[in-house]
Amino acid sequence: MAAKELSAEDYVQGILQGDVVLLSKAITLVESTREEHRELSAQILEGIESHSGKSFRLGITGVPGVGKSSFIERFGKLLVEQGHKVAVLAIDPSSSKSKGSILGDKTRMNELSTHPSVYIRPSPSSGSLGGVTRHTYESMLLCEAAGYDFILIETVGVGQSETAVSGITDFFLLLMLAGAGDELQGIKRGIMEMADALVITKADGDNLIKAKAARTEYAQAMHLFQAAESGWIPKSLICSSVSGEGMQDILNMLNEYKNKTTSSGYFTEKRKTQQFHLFQQALEEEVLRNFHANAEVKKETEVVFTKSKTGSIQPFVMARKIAALFFKSGK
Amino acid sequence: MAAKELSAEDYVQGILQGDVVLLSKAITLVESTREEHRELSAQILEGIESHSGKSFRLGITGVPGVGKSSFIERFGKLLVEQGHKVAVLAIDPSSSKSKGSILGDKTRMNELSTHPSVYIRPSPSSGSLGGVTRHTYESMLLCEAAGYDFILIETVGVGQSETAVSGITDFFLLLMLAGAGDELQGIKRGIMEMADALVITKADGDNLIKAKAARTEYAQAMHLFQAAESGWIPKSLICSSVSGEGMQDILNMLNEYKNKTTSSGYFTEKRKTQQFHLFQQALEEEVLRNFHANAEVKKETEVVFTKSKTGSIQPFVMARKIAALFFKSGK
Repeated sequence: MAAKELSAEDYVQGILQGDVVLLSKAITLVESTREEHRELSAQILEGIESHSGKSFRLGITGVPGVGKSSFIERFGKLLVEQGHKVAVLAIDPSSSKSKGSILGDKTRMNELSTHPSVYIRPSPSSGSLGGVTRHTYESMLLCEAAGYDFILIETVGVGQSETAVSGITDFFLLLMLAGAGDELQGIKRGIMEMADALVITKADGDNLIKAKAARTEYAQAMHLFQAAESGWIPKSLICSSVSGEGMQDILNMLNEYKNKTTSSGYFTEKRKTQQFHLFQQALEEEVLRNFHANAEVKKETEVVFTKSKTGSIQPFVMARKIAALFFKSGK
Repeated sequence: MAAKELSAEDYVQGILQGDVVLLSKAITLVESTREEHRELSAQILEGIESHSGKSFRLGITGVPGVGKSSFIERFGKLLVEQGHKVAVLAIDPSSSKSKGSILGDKTRMNELSTHPSVYIRPSPSSGSLGGVTRHTYESMLLCEAAGYDFILIETVGVGQSETAVSGITDFFLLLMLAGAGDELQGIKRGIMEMADALVITKADGDNLIKAKAARTEYAQAMHLFQAAESGWIPKSLICSSVSGEGMQDILNMLNEYKNKTTSSGYFTEKRKTQQFHLFQQALEEEVLRNFHANAEVKKETEVVFTKSKTGSIQPFVMARKIAALFFKSGK
């Protein structure tokens, strides 16, 4: 039957039973810009809310070429072997401009994508960072309601999107390459500060020694960035998606983090804080969207633009006048 | 007489006659958050607008320790020797937190600050980046109306404020130190991309050879960042605030830039574009300020915050509801 014939309740029931087709359709609704779709998806989210949240949310980033897909393929297999249901999502606002979603090419996760307890959802092929963040966050809730207890959220090492990912995940993993001496140049310092752990990939063959050296080097650097709030000291590890080296260590570390922060209460606190921040960001985006959609504002802005082209304007005085005008007419 | 006794017209006349006391008082009004002060300053800006803009606006940045103050002291002296009236302003949103305004300590510009054709205004000691940008931009217009034809706007190499400075200046100068091999680490790549020229400071004594080597190195790097729009290829120079080496070259370069971009029309176009962008940024800031000041919004936000502390919320759904509610009540 077609999506439009389904009620919110149909979706909720299907998703709670782990129906992947309905899950995918619900995510499509979440990604849709059509008014009725947003209404329906809001109802679905309402329905599944109490069943969401029961997962570990892992954010993964790293510069292109670091081997994110191979890492997810190998680490994901370890997760399913140990009985987890794994969902892989992506935050990739750049995907519209660039060659396409970093997860679009599922062939890069061949085995994983065909595994029955794995759900891979390509990144929405367009949208603002705020939009993509909402899509990813709400898709994650739907996946959790469908029984996926380990969510991997991938992003490209482009800056803003890392902040978005760390804003919706429990643990933020930064993948890096050893050697080349310019490790610090690819990734922004701000991103290292966000990371709960740093993993040097491709630690195999001739690269193993270099990787171990880099791990030591970073272990020192990471100490500067320790998140006092959580009481967690960022770790530095190595892994190989070829040999599987270090994969179990990474999972052990994540379990250690979950246990520590759960007993300290930080795990839940962080999620609450994240929810409120998401709300604040979304609220401001909505306000500006509404404001710019206002006919009066459009007209006035157009007038200012024309003025600025022909003569000179007083940007701040004019901005104040137009905003005031709008908010007065708004009261 | 006290500032409040003066009319906008008094200010305008005084400023146009180059009265430094009235100029300073007007800038204080611009920096004030009091409603009546903002009204008065808006009238003053209205009055001087047609007399502003007749200057070269130079943005100067660099990491702490690069020698910004010494550079401005030496380069400023060259400017006044050649008949310019020089105003020095700063964008420094961090100054509230840090040890104070980077221009607060005028003693670091001893000779310059006492020169009759020089006006140095310390950075506002607090405020958001948006606020400080407005203060600096409007202060600049007032200085121009008072006859200052060369405006130096200094900022610390902290990131955001560079974007702000390049958003209100004609030419963006990046000061850098030679050697240490880690030149690129101090400054963000994004800032290099903004720079119209890069000047290696402290090119004297034993440091001269190193500086010349760095200049060559950067000259190559800068080629990657050439601003196609202006047709200007970013330059790489060296200077010494001790020997004065390179100072005249820098001034020659600025004159070359002004001549080229004036005849091409880019000089004026850039200012028009800057004005409109400033307007757009200011408009969004005003809208959010108004929105958050709204009692209903405050109440609703408080409710969501409490909910997020006790239970779980749907950040995006709630944001949409509250924004819609406000804008409906607003129509």
